[in-house]
Amino acid sequence: MKIAIMAGDGIGPEVVAQAVKVLRHVLPQAETEEAPVGLAGIETRGVPLPDETLALAKRADAILFGAVGGPDEASLPREQRPGTGLLKLRKELTLFANFRPAFMFPELIGASTLKPEIVDGLDLVILRELNGDIYFGEPRGIETGPSGERYGINTMRYTESEVERIAHAAFQAARRRRGKVCSVDKANVLETMQLWREVMTRVGREYPDVELSHLFIDAAAMTLMRAPKQFDVIVTGNMFGDILSDAAAMLTGSIGMLPSASLGLDRKGLYEPVHGSAPDIAGQDIANPLAAILSFAMLLRESLGLEDKAQEVESAVRSVLAGGYRTADIYQPGTHRVGTEEMGDAVVQAL
Amino acid sequence: MKIAIMAGDGIGPEVVAQAVKVLRHVLPQAETEEAPVGLAGIETRGVPLPDETLALAKRADAILFGAVGGPDEASLPREQRPGTGLLKLRKELTLFANFRPAFMFPELIGASTLKPEIVDGLDLVILRELNGDIYFGEPRGIETGPSGERYGINTMRYTESEVERIAHAAFQAARRRRGKVCSVDKANVLETMQLWREVMTRVGREYPDVELSHLFIDAAAMTLMRAPKQFDVIVTGNMFGDILSDAAAMLTGSIGMLPSASLGLDRKGLYEPVHGSAPDIAGQDIANPLAAILSFAMLLRESLGLEDKAQEVESAVRSVLAGGYRTADIYQPGTHRVGTEEMGDAVVQAL
Ligand SMILES: CC(C)[C@H](C(=O)O)[C@@H](O)C(=O)O
Ligand SMILES: CC(C)[C@H](C(=O)O)[C@@H](O)C(=O)O
Repeated sequence: MKIAIMAGDGIGPEVVAQAVKVLRHVLPQAETEEAPVGLAGIETRGVPLPDETLALAKRADAILFGAVGGPDEASLPREQRPGTGLLKLRKELTLFANFRPAFMFPELIGASTLKPEIVDGLDLVILRELNGDIYFGEPRGIETGPSGERYGINTMRYTESEVERIAHAAFQAARRRRGKVCSVDKANVLETMQLWREVMTRVGREYPDVELSHLFIDAAAMTLMRAPKQFDVIVTGNMFGDILSDAAAMLTGSIGMLPSASLGLDRKGLYEPVHGSAPDIAGQDIANPLAAILSFAMLLRESLGLEDKAQEVESAVRSVLAGGYRTADIYQPGTHRVGTEEMGDAVVQAL
Repeated sequence: MKIAIMAGDGIGPEVVAQAVKVLRHVLPQAETEEAPVGLAGIETRGVPLPDETLALAKRADAILFGAVGGPDEASLPREQRPGTGLLKLRKELTLFANFRPAFMFPELIGASTLKPEIVDGLDLVILRELNGDIYFGEPRGIETGPSGERYGINTMRYTESEVERIAHAAFQAARRRRGKVCSVDKANVLETMQLWREVMTRVGREYPDVELSHLFIDAAAMTLMRAPKQFDVIVTGNMFGDILSDAAAMLTGSIGMLPSASLGLDRKGLYEPVHGSAPDIAGQDIANPLAAILSFAMLLRESLGLEDKAQEVESAVRSVLAGGYRTADIYQPGTHRVGTEEMGDAVVQAL
């Protein structure tokens, strides 16, 4: 059993270090191997996804990932942007199904900016397609037109089979949950999304036990704020999924708590917190490691098939929350404020 | 003075009828002329934007618009989708600057799903670029690849000058408000958005008195839910603006209250409620006409330069709210529930 550790940038290394503590505890026999990605890849090897890192990802049974990105990345050419490392990894390993659960921890309901009755008991999952869309479509770039004026261009693109495979993933996930899929598109404007809706509808007929509905992305963003509890599985493209999943995470008020899994054709997966690299708070021992730890729980479940151990880790997290432990992002008066390290130790203790 | 009335579909006609009542009252000398658009255009003339409708739009000083769209539009070819009528109107008249204010009426704070302290005093405006982006970019369509598989394609595209003109509109709007612009893009992934950010930054140097910041769209969606009061003017592209402006509207809990203005190179503008055609509640005299009435107030201000009259209409709306009048969407126990017509009459009465 080989687990690749790619801690990345910003708070990545410190939160992943806590997840690795938990890993050592529940899976002492597992082999781990670290490799640089993102800024860390650029600084040590000149590229955001060094060859050795990709080779390790291919060899490993699963990848525990931190976060990538730093300040000022937006103006760099693509090959030098930290995020490109993550995008390449998703694409090279055909990790096309990104599960981003958004659920409410009862102890943290006060952290949400939404009224308790709107988010109490919230339990949805955003399934974001991860290998297609405008993230990868060609042509792309900044060109100069005949008049000498520059223009930027990117291409949204989906093939039928790309939509089919994410559709199957969505319906199958709904079967394991509450049996509802809401597909989000912009079929009233974009032909790519008309094809998306057509394929979703067709594949949906193979799952008559699952209820399928459709929303335009603008309506979905609104409904997520107005009545999020009506959702079970939301399936959408790479671009809309990026936006909706962060909005859904924010419903819970505690993005420092939310894990994600990126899965492909076999059991191999990449597991990462929903939060980013947060360079502004890096290295201060204040970041919340629970999203990384819960990502490791997903790894146990999805890639290693160790459901029992996954549940043990999740129970340990719930019990430290019940015990009042809080990092700064979820701190409220009357609870016990701890740092990143101390939170990791508390989870190991609870195990 | 000629005002084009394009009521459109669903609840469009009934809410616009109330705005026209207000118009007759404050501007009895104005000439009005109606024309079909959206489904109404398709049903009467076979296309969502009949030639006479476009000709009227070109002739008029301003357009008061309802809403377009019906059920099942997503599978129609582009030329037959009701939304295409609106998109063509925006493009043909070069209405590139879509102002969508999101502000809190103190009386309606209970209608928000967010906690009062998060949205109390909220006052921001989303400035959405309306003539470019993936809405209009070519190539577009559903094609069949060499392997016989179909794929969908759409093109995100912005030229430097398109970004420049919306940038100027944003900085100028900020000067009339609280002096802050937040530009929203996805420059860490999309080259088009790198160009967007570069141009925003360059144009921003001409407005040293305005504070410019940048957010990626996913972070913007989160920040809008976590701490929306920090925003003044948010400027973004057509696609991201579609999503963010609906999310921002939902912050107020009363999308039936919010107007919008689409402006171009001269004073001519198109004014429409932020809400859609809501076919499910059409013809029942329950829709909220205040967004249409407030859109007419924006028309008075922006296209006709009648600031005093605009304020009169806005005060009248505030006074009917203070008087307890509520349509179903904003009704709360203890207030006086009224229908669409009755609400329109109450505003005229208050004038
Ligand atoms: C870092 C960036 C490229 C990435 C994305 O846009 O996919 C991130 O925002 C995410 O959601 O994982
Ligand atoms: C009707 C549709 C084409 C339109 C859009 O996407 O622009 C609508 O959602 C809007 O925001 O005005």
